[in-house]
Amino acid sequence: MKEKITIAKQSGKAFKLKKGDILTVIDPKGQQVSDMVLFNSADTKEKVSSGKTLDFEESILITTSNYLWSNRSNKMVEIIKDTNGRNDFLLAPCSKETFEVMYNHKGYHPSCLENLYKNLQPFGIDFDDIPNAFNIFMNVQFDLEGKISVLPPTSVAGDLIQFEACMDLIVCLTACSAEDSNGGSFKPIEYFIETVN
Amino acid sequence: MKEKITIAKQSGKAFKLKKGDILTVIDPKGQQVSDMVLFNSADTKEKVSSGKTLDFEESILITTSNYLWSNRSNKMVEIIKDTNGRNDFLLAPCSKETFEVMYNHKGYHPSCLENLYKNLQPFGIDFDDIPNAFNIFMNVQFDLEGKISVLPPTSVAGDLIQFEACMDLIVCLTACSAEDSNGGSFKPIEYFIETVN
Repeated sequence: MKEKITIAKQSGKAFKLKKGDILTVIDPKGQQVSDMVLFNSADTKEKVSSGKTLDFEESILITTSNYLWSNRSNKMVEIIKDTNGRNDFLLAPCSKETFEVMYNHKGYHPSCLENLYKNLQPFGIDFDDIPNAFNIFMNVQFDLEGKISVLPPTSVAGDLIQFEACMDLIVCLTACSAEDSNGGSFKPIEYFIETVN
Repeated sequence: MKEKITIAKQSGKAFKLKKGDILTVIDPKGQQVSDMVLFNSADTKEKVSSGKTLDFEESILITTSNYLWSNRSNKMVEIIKDTNGRNDFLLAPCSKETFEVMYNHKGYHPSCLENLYKNLQPFGIDFDDIPNAFNIFMNVQFDLEGKISVLPPTSVAGDLIQFEACMDLIVCLTACSAEDSNGGSFKPIEYFIETVN
């Protein structure tokens, strides 16, 4: 299977990925962010852990040859290709409160957290069990005092990142809903899966 | 109540903190780290979130006047005093795998994750539900490329950090078990609670 699937702007998709399969996530138009969370499909209490990943990879920025690790200290995926190179685990998925507290937005706003939850709910995953997401193509800058700023992504049309699954997974991806993380525009994300069996 | 309680080296303690109470955490000998996790005592699915805290506080380093936020975007505690000033959420609590993978240690080793779990289990909190901890007095250095290194804490004997509770909480604190985070020694941590009612 190598069918390319589009995640429409401000939405998300969840799907299974078998051990050994390769997932490619593409920024088709440039300057878009995708939040990704991972769960062990055999036991969804095991999930991607920002803290364990930073521990074992000894880096805030995570790219080619790094692994994403679980809360039980198991490797979940290996990053085997990354044409942009700026991804991290620092900030939480945008939520309605992100827009209320940080952007003074009134009323409904789509968010990555809502899109993760809506797509993961059919897999039996609760809202409160959604972990810190891996922020693909997100351009989070920090200085040596730790001050954080979010700049438009440096990704250009066609930039991609490839993950090889180290265990059977449930994956959820979003096309980010936040104005600030994608330079004021809303764009889709694409992905495809290459299966080994 | 202002009884000072000692957390013995390589151990932990969990306790309740009421809204408005002030918790003071002390490094009595200097160069020791304490991992702290927080849960809403009325609903332990709500817990401290590294991602939400970095979002709303816009900083990797968290100190006086910063809040620690929950996964539901609520304020859990405010830091009202911090005489050392180096605390973060980057690395996960040390676990047996930390010592196996990173230090090539064979056999049993005490760890913050074990001590968090042992002390939180009586409150009905599962191993997999322990979030990234707030690393008090931990000296995690990072460069602009994101490379992480753990240096001995800069805390000296008597350094302290004070938290005012914004909701009723279950708190768990450790006296860190890892050689590398406390300069090769194992030391206690102290705390006391000032109640408003």
